[in-house]
Amino acid sequence: MAVNLPAPRREDLLPVAGVELGWAEAGIRKANRKDLLLLRLAAGATVAGVFTRNRFAAAPVQVCRRHIAGAIRALVVNTGNANAGTGAPGLAAARATCDAVGRLLDIPAAAVLPFSTGVIMEPLPVERLIAGLPAAQQSLAADHWLEAAEAIMTTDTVAKAVSRRVKIGGHSVTITGIAKGAGMIRPDMATMLGFVAMDCRVPQPLLQALTQEVADASFNRITVDGDTSTNDSFVVMATGAGALAIDDAADAALPALRGALTDVARTLAQAIVRDGEGATKFIEVRVEEAGNSQEAAQVAYAVAHSPLVKTAFFASDPNLGRILAAVGNAGIADLDPARVQLYLDDVWVVRDGGRHPDYQEADGQRVMKQSEIVVHLKLGRGTASTRVWTTDFSHDYVSINADYRS
Amino acid sequence: MAVNLPAPRREDLLPVAGVELGWAEAGIRKANRKDLLLLRLAAGATVAGVFTRNRFAAAPVQVCRRHIAGAIRALVVNTGNANAGTGAPGLAAARATCDAVGRLLDIPAAAVLPFSTGVIMEPLPVERLIAGLPAAQQSLAADHWLEAAEAIMTTDTVAKAVSRRVKIGGHSVTITGIAKGAGMIRPDMATMLGFVAMDCRVPQPLLQALTQEVADASFNRITVDGDTSTNDSFVVMATGAGALAIDDAADAALPALRGALTDVARTLAQAIVRDGEGATKFIEVRVEEAGNSQEAAQVAYAVAHSPLVKTAFFASDPNLGRILAAVGNAGIADLDPARVQLYLDDVWVVRDGGRHPDYQEADGQRVMKQSEIVVHLKLGRGTASTRVWTTDFSHDYVSINADYRS
Repeated sequence: MAVNLPAPRREDLLPVAGVELGWAEAGIRKANRKDLLLLRLAAGATVAGVFTRNRFAAAPVQVCRRHIAGAIRALVVNTGNANAGTGAPGLAAARATCDAVGRLLDIPAAAVLPFSTGVIMEPLPVERLIAGLPAAQQSLAADHWLEAAEAIMTTDTVAKAVSRRVKIGGHSVTITGIAKGAGMIRPDMATMLGFVAMDCRVPQPLLQALTQEVADASFNRITVDGDTSTNDSFVVMATGAGALAIDDAADAALPALRGALTDVARTLAQAIVRDGEGATKFIEVRVEEAGNSQEAAQVAYAVAHSPLVKTAFFASDPNLGRILAAVGNAGIADLDPARVQLYLDDVWVVRDGGRHPDYQEADGQRVMKQSEIVVHLKLGRGTASTRVWTTDFSHDYVSINADYRS
Repeated sequence: MAVNLPAPRREDLLPVAGVELGWAEAGIRKANRKDLLLLRLAAGATVAGVFTRNRFAAAPVQVCRRHIAGAIRALVVNTGNANAGTGAPGLAAARATCDAVGRLLDIPAAAVLPFSTGVIMEPLPVERLIAGLPAAQQSLAADHWLEAAEAIMTTDTVAKAVSRRVKIGGHSVTITGIAKGAGMIRPDMATMLGFVAMDCRVPQPLLQALTQEVADASFNRITVDGDTSTNDSFVVMATGAGALAIDDAADAALPALRGALTDVARTLAQAIVRDGEGATKFIEVRVEEAGNSQEAAQVAYAVAHSPLVKTAFFASDPNLGRILAAVGNAGIADLDPARVQLYLDDVWVVRDGGRHPDYQEADGQRVMKQSEIVVHLKLGRGTASTRVWTTDFSHDYVSINADYRS
């Protein structure tokens, strides 16, 4: 029951020159489902990534951190098992995966980035993964983005994929990305899994900086349940197969590229929220007039994480005092309640820290019934602002997470 | 459906000399239910309190902070309305309440502490509250602790009250307390509402320090949903009517009194968790070998607040990797996963950061099915430790909070 999130259509997903995708049903956790993705990059691509800050970073994340700045030629992704909390055997399994892909594609193991997603603290059945690789290799093709998006799903109900073709500096650039994620979503400097490819050329150090900036404006601004995964990874690939080449940070074409890439990443990030476990509403928390961007984010996340706020949204109940309680709870020691304004979409609910005298519950009720809602806070402290996207908290969230795995 | 929490029995609740309690059905929010408590203190009592650190502190909390160090003669508590997020009219309503109690009992308004609990951001119907006061006055009696506990309930399913009689320094001391709370529970330097009286004599500044210490070991170590209320208040009253008199912080009888008071406060605090909204399990998160008590609490709360951990407990599913993910997510930048141990009761689950080779899922399953569970973490960083008490996260939590109010 995703919120306003249609499934991607094959014809809308544009191949990116220099990228081929293949998949297999490797039976990692369950039989008869796509659970293995192989992505091959042409020689000359640059790749950058940001990864989870969870201290229990999964084994594949640890391997990715070592490989990422090198000459990457392949990505391999399994679902059904996170290979996290698995200690030294988990690290050996991630390395064995890279070795196997390297042998298969005739590239160095260090040219492979491994990714895993699924249950934490279970041993990765690496022999089944490796046995599935030849089938994935045989299906490699440039127009398999939809199958790739499907192959990385876990509790997702809708595949997440998007393409944009933009003109930058007179050159056509194609950007296509996929992502997965629905729960354990509160990315911190990264996301669940997100992979975006584009056919322009960008030097690796610049691509790394760009990836971080884009993540901060997209995947790092969403939350479903406040839990940061052990496996969050967001990877951007620049194949260099197209005409556009960015030379350095001063390149005049960089802002346009950043804008297009942010558009793709934000669409994918918001798709994760729209498909959030049990979600019935898509909520933007917009915080303005904060003293700095750190406190803007603190307040936005305090609201977005409050179970009481989220259950009120689920019930379409304008019990909006819970939003004030969450703001007061955000850890800003010198917050002056008398300077706080709260709007629900266009309805002014709280003026100067108290209920607006003209506020009618019927107006709050009208907005709460919508499937998309903006919670708009002004703190009266400065000029910093941020936006965070989240969901409500429903019976189905509990069902999904009480049932997942068992 | 509280977890192992029988209703208090009238015969177990001991009167405290110097305290009388009365109640009324004032119709604050709903008719025909006890919603007003009046507590009268004999002259000479000292009173101390700790209050919410939520920046949207309710109007009565603001008044309490001004009055608390003076000569307090009465407490007045209403349910059905929190009088929070109500601005200047809310403050006027809290003051009018103190004025009315003062006139009725012939004491100064500044000798009255007001408390409110219920829905946030609704105007307090102070005229109905004041109209209910005479009935409350007429029912004042020393043996009305059970009715007092009932009069402060909101979403509580069980009244919370406890008594202890202890011998300290050769003198008998009687301590009786009540509390309310089931949701919006993550007290921070305070609790929901907790009121404890004892018949010994303690100077006010010392009582204030004692109250803070006791709160830190009881109400400040529980969480249901991570939301700190606007109205949290924990008040300790020393009537001085008994034989024991504590003179100063060096008094030899102080540690015994602190121990008895902590016992009462912790029993009440744990009762709030046992009655947590939708709770089916009572969970202690015990963190040891932390570098300092701050990081011990950070880790304990990261586990206790994780919706994924809490839904796994609800399902009795030993999906214990979620606990590791929460620990990694606690914000301790230099945590070394390889030094982390995790036990579920007596079952060693994680050794040195990875799944213990001898761990059998059947053992985890056995513990997860219990109604009381200890999550025991060792961080391998130092000698600090803490304990936090919490609940699981169930369908009923969502139902209760989606339905409460509307």
